[in-house]
Amino acid sequence: MRDVSIIGIGQTPVGELWEKSLRHLAHDAIVAALRDAGTGQADALYVGNMLSGELAEQEHLGALFADFAGLRGIEAFKIEAACASGAAALRVGHMAVASGLYDMVIVCGVEKMTDAIGADTTAALALAADQEYEVSQGVSFVALNALLMRRYMYEYNVPHEAFAGFSVNAHRNGAGNPNAMFRRPITAETYRRAAMIADPINLMDSSPICDGAAVVVLAPSDLASDGRGSGPAVRILASTSATDSLAIHDRRDPLFLEAAYLSSQKAYVQAGVTPADIDLFELHDAFSIMSALSLEATGFARRGEGVRWAEDDGERIAIDGELPLSTMGGLKARGHPVGATGVYQVVEVVQQLRGEAGVNQVKDARLGMAQNIGGSGATVITHVLAAE
Amino acid sequence: MRDVSIIGIGQTPVGELWEKSLRHLAHDAIVAALRDAGTGQADALYVGNMLSGELAEQEHLGALFADFAGLRGIEAFKIEAACASGAAALRVGHMAVASGLYDMVIVCGVEKMTDAIGADTTAALALAADQEYEVSQGVSFVALNALLMRRYMYEYNVPHEAFAGFSVNAHRNGAGNPNAMFRRPITAETYRRAAMIADPINLMDSSPICDGAAVVVLAPSDLASDGRGSGPAVRILASTSATDSLAIHDRRDPLFLEAAYLSSQKAYVQAGVTPADIDLFELHDAFSIMSALSLEATGFARRGEGVRWAEDDGERIAIDGELPLSTMGGLKARGHPVGATGVYQVVEVVQQLRGEAGVNQVKDARLGMAQNIGGSGATVITHVLAAE
Repeated sequence: MRDVSIIGIGQTPVGELWEKSLRHLAHDAIVAALRDAGTGQADALYVGNMLSGELAEQEHLGALFADFAGLRGIEAFKIEAACASGAAALRVGHMAVASGLYDMVIVCGVEKMTDAIGADTTAALALAADQEYEVSQGVSFVALNALLMRRYMYEYNVPHEAFAGFSVNAHRNGAGNPNAMFRRPITAETYRRAAMIADPINLMDSSPICDGAAVVVLAPSDLASDGRGSGPAVRILASTSATDSLAIHDRRDPLFLEAAYLSSQKAYVQAGVTPADIDLFELHDAFSIMSALSLEATGFARRGEGVRWAEDDGERIAIDGELPLSTMGGLKARGHPVGATGVYQVVEVVQQLRGEAGVNQVKDARLGMAQNIGGSGATVITHVLAAE
Repeated sequence: MRDVSIIGIGQTPVGELWEKSLRHLAHDAIVAALRDAGTGQADALYVGNMLSGELAEQEHLGALFADFAGLRGIEAFKIEAACASGAAALRVGHMAVASGLYDMVIVCGVEKMTDAIGADTTAALALAADQEYEVSQGVSFVALNALLMRRYMYEYNVPHEAFAGFSVNAHRNGAGNPNAMFRRPITAETYRRAAMIADPINLMDSSPICDGAAVVVLAPSDLASDGRGSGPAVRILASTSATDSLAIHDRRDPLFLEAAYLSSQKAYVQAGVTPADIDLFELHDAFSIMSALSLEATGFARRGEGVRWAEDDGERIAIDGELPLSTMGGLKARGHPVGATGVYQVVEVVQQLRGEAGVNQVKDARLGMAQNIGGSGATVITHVLAAE
């Protein structure tokens, strides 16, 4: 297999983008990424998206976007793995280049959650969970995460306030990212007083419903450094995934994200690194409980201690902290356009490794990790990237 | 890139399978294919499906099916390209094995169209077309094909009855396939008297709404012939795809399937064959107009002459004819569970090349082609398979 590098990135701002349709979002990010890569061509397009059928009454996004971006004719599919669809599309793009099949591949994560002409958005998000054993009982996706958070608080005797630092850190970083949906810092007091969504998950534990598209352009590493692009190429050291049951009650231990463990262990081996080598970690903070569980499953904390990274307003996970998390705002503040999120995370790691993260720049960032989670941990995809 | 072979096949019968849910269909076909391959393990599962979100209110099929088939933990995604989702999943599986990443990959095409708890099935199928420029005008998917058929009849001065042979041939072959939905032969008279669906498309021009799942197990060709499986391995000589605009009015020529042309030309080059070498062709006869257009775009007929293959009750496309088409009944009679169809086609080519097609066996079949079409030709995926 050939080594694969990211030679171009593009993104739209994240937010309620009422004036942009699904295809316009994809188009804008694709054009930006191709320009960044210094090319106007590609061999294939893989689209990460979860909800276009439900919300926009549009499937068949591969051919649609290829055509709309001026690339009619090339291979193009949509890849879906719930909220991990973006990283799943990157997995396929990675294979296509690693195999030797294509030399230039576009991976586009896109989601349009506002302006839905189809289903209700909360109902649509529940498609990530088990319809027959969870959703049909009336449980929403946020309710499933609330059950996990409550269990965590009970099991490890942790008060709700202990999670505040994840949210404070995300919003602090969102303030410095021009593409973030929320750009005002919050305090632990904001967190404490936030409206309840599904007890114990409150508004500040939750990522927002929003629109956005992010794109990476992939090429074989040995062809990547030809000076065409506007930034240095960034090498993909690891691209791995793993799965677990959709239904949380089917897992041996609901508080251990088995797929995050498997996916990250494989990634460490593939990249030849350990958690201690990682300079920044874009984790899947769709809900603050997910941050704690991810940190435990990926080897950054012992069981029950993931939440301790949030202590002191998240000082240790800040841009200049020991382990910078959600450096551009994360799902919480940059926003979580579900099928696009996995690509946004990788785009942001690339920004950091290129030294283009502006006021959010992590000093001397050489090695970054992104982990994208589908459902309540049923699909977990990990990428480790390195500056060349 | 490594050569890839199919070492196991599995399928459920196609029909209105009210007693089987989506996950049960997938499970049954996966288990059958693993047994056929002589293994109980796999490294990854790629699911081709179009409508699970709309009709079953369930996405995230990769992780769901991996778990339900006893393979919890492995990589698993859903791939979507409208009615070409099945072959698109095979494209991804092919890359995964060809790249050297995995040695044993499951590709599962599955669709559950009856028993929908979500949208109306006709509305759901329109997700393959352009929502903003076609569907919002009130046009259904069958209506789009009706426009194409009417144009073909006008442009080439062809009467409707001229298409009858495609349908007669499909139903003749369906009668011999125990997994086909329709197993009664029809006559040209049945065709002529069939109820009108969307003028000029009548019931006998149209493939049915149905349920089904089909699976292939892939392995590198040099590891494929270890004698574990129940049949000889079948080699994938070509796996190619191409795209066109979703909206038919956006094409230079609505009667020429540009993506079918591109995809098949690439396939012929990749396989080192010409149309004359093909012993049987599983084409995408979702509507009989598609058979005529496919035959023209893939080089089996000149413009306006594809329909001539249907002459004399389809004598030249019968099992013992010059170019056997839809040998197990095709989309018309075996049935068209949309996201599963591309895998059914390939499974059936494997049956033919292994000499396991029973009364429908094409004599001395060495080289088979399958072509899966998404939308009205916006995604076209071609596979050429050869007996080892």
